[in-house]
Amino acid sequence: MTDRDLSALRIDGERLWSRLMEMARHGATAKGGVCRLTGSDEDKAGRDLFVAWCEAAGCSVTVDKIGNIFARRPGRPGRDDSIGAVLAGSHLDSQPTGGRFDGIYGVLAALEVVETLNDHAVETGALVEIAAWTNEEGARFAPAMLGSGVFAGVFDLDWTLAIQDKEGKALGAELARIGYAGEAAPGDRRIKAAFEVHIEQGPILERERKTIGVVQGVQGMRWYDLVIEGQEAHAGPTPMEGRRDPFQGLMQILPEIYAIAKDRAPWGRATCGDIAALPGSRNTVPGRLTTAVDLRHPDQDTLAEMDQALQASVARHCADLGLAGRVETIWDSPAVKFDPACIAAVRAGVAATGYPAMDIVSGAGHDSVYLSRIAPVGMIFVPCEGGLSHNEAENATPEDIAAGCDVLLHAVLAQAGA
Amino acid sequence: MTDRDLSALRIDGERLWSRLMEMARHGATAKGGVCRLTGSDEDKAGRDLFVAWCEAAGCSVTVDKIGNIFARRPGRPGRDDSIGAVLAGSHLDSQPTGGRFDGIYGVLAALEVVETLNDHAVETGALVEIAAWTNEEGARFAPAMLGSGVFAGVFDLDWTLAIQDKEGKALGAELARIGYAGEAAPGDRRIKAAFEVHIEQGPILERERKTIGVVQGVQGMRWYDLVIEGQEAHAGPTPMEGRRDPFQGLMQILPEIYAIAKDRAPWGRATCGDIAALPGSRNTVPGRLTTAVDLRHPDQDTLAEMDQALQASVARHCADLGLAGRVETIWDSPAVKFDPACIAAVRAGVAATGYPAMDIVSGAGHDSVYLSRIAPVGMIFVPCEGGLSHNEAENATPEDIAAGCDVLLHAVLAQAGA
Repeated sequence: MTDRDLSALRIDGERLWSRLMEMARHGATAKGGVCRLTGSDEDKAGRDLFVAWCEAAGCSVTVDKIGNIFARRPGRPGRDDSIGAVLAGSHLDSQPTGGRFDGIYGVLAALEVVETLNDHAVETGALVEIAAWTNEEGARFAPAMLGSGVFAGVFDLDWTLAIQDKEGKALGAELARIGYAGEAAPGDRRIKAAFEVHIEQGPILERERKTIGVVQGVQGMRWYDLVIEGQEAHAGPTPMEGRRDPFQGLMQILPEIYAIAKDRAPWGRATCGDIAALPGSRNTVPGRLTTAVDLRHPDQDTLAEMDQALQASVARHCADLGLAGRVETIWDSPAVKFDPACIAAVRAGVAATGYPAMDIVSGAGHDSVYLSRIAPVGMIFVPCEGGLSHNEAENATPEDIAAGCDVLLHAVLAQAGA
Repeated sequence: MTDRDLSALRIDGERLWSRLMEMARHGATAKGGVCRLTGSDEDKAGRDLFVAWCEAAGCSVTVDKIGNIFARRPGRPGRDDSIGAVLAGSHLDSQPTGGRFDGIYGVLAALEVVETLNDHAVETGALVEIAAWTNEEGARFAPAMLGSGVFAGVFDLDWTLAIQDKEGKALGAELARIGYAGEAAPGDRRIKAAFEVHIEQGPILERERKTIGVVQGVQGMRWYDLVIEGQEAHAGPTPMEGRRDPFQGLMQILPEIYAIAKDRAPWGRATCGDIAALPGSRNTVPGRLTTAVDLRHPDQDTLAEMDQALQASVARHCADLGLAGRVETIWDSPAVKFDPACIAAVRAGVAATGYPAMDIVSGAGHDSVYLSRIAPVGMIFVPCEGGLSHNEAENATPEDIAAGCDVLLHAVLAQAGA
């Protein structure tokens, strides 16, 4: 225990902002956004800059076989490393037309925490580590969250390294090409607690005029292909009453899909993101419609109810209309509830700093989802302009960016101990 | 005038059927259908066979610059050719996965009429001509009905010859390659009346148990792109109530699109044949939905009402939901009413033969649509199995095929005179 009162400690908001803007030059797009895809030359440049900053801050840097980067802040002599590190981080990669904050904010905020501890010569009981996870976005190499997923044992290392982009280039080969196929075995480090600060990617904090979201967990998500099959027919000679038209089923089912979410407000979500008709000819009644459906809810039981309601709606209307309907599950990501002690640490950070805060649930996936399978995890959200993300116009204020990092600092301190 | 009573005259159904089956060998597909695309080697083989049959039947054959083939039956000496020919025909080309009857039936039935007149030494007052129009399907070279369209002055000859297929090959070059870029100026022949016998390509005759459809005209058709724009948003973090989701507009508009047709039964038609979402990502509310809408009705005023109803529905629902909706007209093909004298000639054919018949309207386009702009035209439909067409499983019975040709024979006789 130290007798210093650290509650007044604040990060250097200008340093953090200026590093965010400097990092945004690597992969900068004409519209003010960022394209920094995993394994690209821009990714290499961003990683090199991050590693240089970490080393200048006195950290020892390790890269594992899936390209995750860990920067360790040396603790005080005699420290007991067996209790594990307090880790903070996020990802460096972006969407093809991504913004300047998604992911990179969480990485550079973690670095800023280390810099602040250094500036004020604060020693911690546990190691503090910065993490930059490989390929969170899944934009170049699908699926998403590969680095944290391999680290957490969700994905096999060799399978993941062999994943190819659209040009047939493998993730492993591209990591080697840019010098980030490391030696360390993924997952080979003990984690006492992990934190991730991130822009909300939604409009709630802005609308509620809160600076900090204390993230309780991540919504469960299920992805489906809703397939409705009827019979192809000529648009002209075929009378309306004899048709078996998948659109006639879809137009009955769509309102029920949205009702499934709205009946479970405020957290239920239903989205149809894509749709295709076969054969897709202007003058032919389609034989098949395939609609991508995404259902989300933070409560697993409620999500299971929503799943059942979708299945029932499709079965009922297709039977009525002589159509063949089926709901194919493409992905099932269970709801995550974050660790109570980590949430308490974030609340402690809010208490220490006094920023207006509210509890919130993440609607999007993050590296913290996989990490929570092997370690206690907490997340902190800050507002982003208009809730916009995965967009070159993504924006946040320097004040909110600094505030989220202040809370991260105190959450880390709460878990790392003096 | 002759004093022969020709009402008992019948075509040779076995000869016609056997020629249909022989022609179907050129471009035969494994599933029992036909792929005989315009300008292909299979098209050449089919044309060569047809020309050989026409010449064997004593006809003189002319090919025009767009590849339309005309086979003229010599009339009796002293005949007045200035009154124009009575023409019968259709097209030789097929869909890529087409059937054995669509188009080719109308051509070989016309040849069978000539053969029957020859067999029974029937002299006619007007010339009788068989026509085979180039590229009716529009499958290889778009748009459809190019040969009859150039003949009728709808399309410019040079523009049409320059149309390219997906591989960049021009229609004119391909016609020359197969030896069917003729010398005659398209449209340079006088037509007294024209008839086309065709499978219905719909289920009405079969359902009503009628052998002959006396075609009154062709439905007016309008093709639209219904574009609904909202705002892209994340499927997870974005609350349901703040979304501007084009699907929410579409699900209101779709039932009204189908009602527009059903309220104008039995002839109103509405079809959504294709749809696309932008960006088309599973976890993103689409920024734009584009739906192909096809509206049809045989009455132009009613079709205009349907157009207005579509526009009003889109405007109303999009305004209510904060979406931007627009209806872009892609194609507008006015309704065609066939010539009363030609319809009367078809009715005379029905009366002479006694087949069960009903009035019908064509829901699909045919060469007769363009031809009707420059000449009196009538059409005869026969049933096809299950209403199926543009499909390798397209089928018709030998009895119905013969019956339609009998009616064609007597319609031609009614117009050509003795």
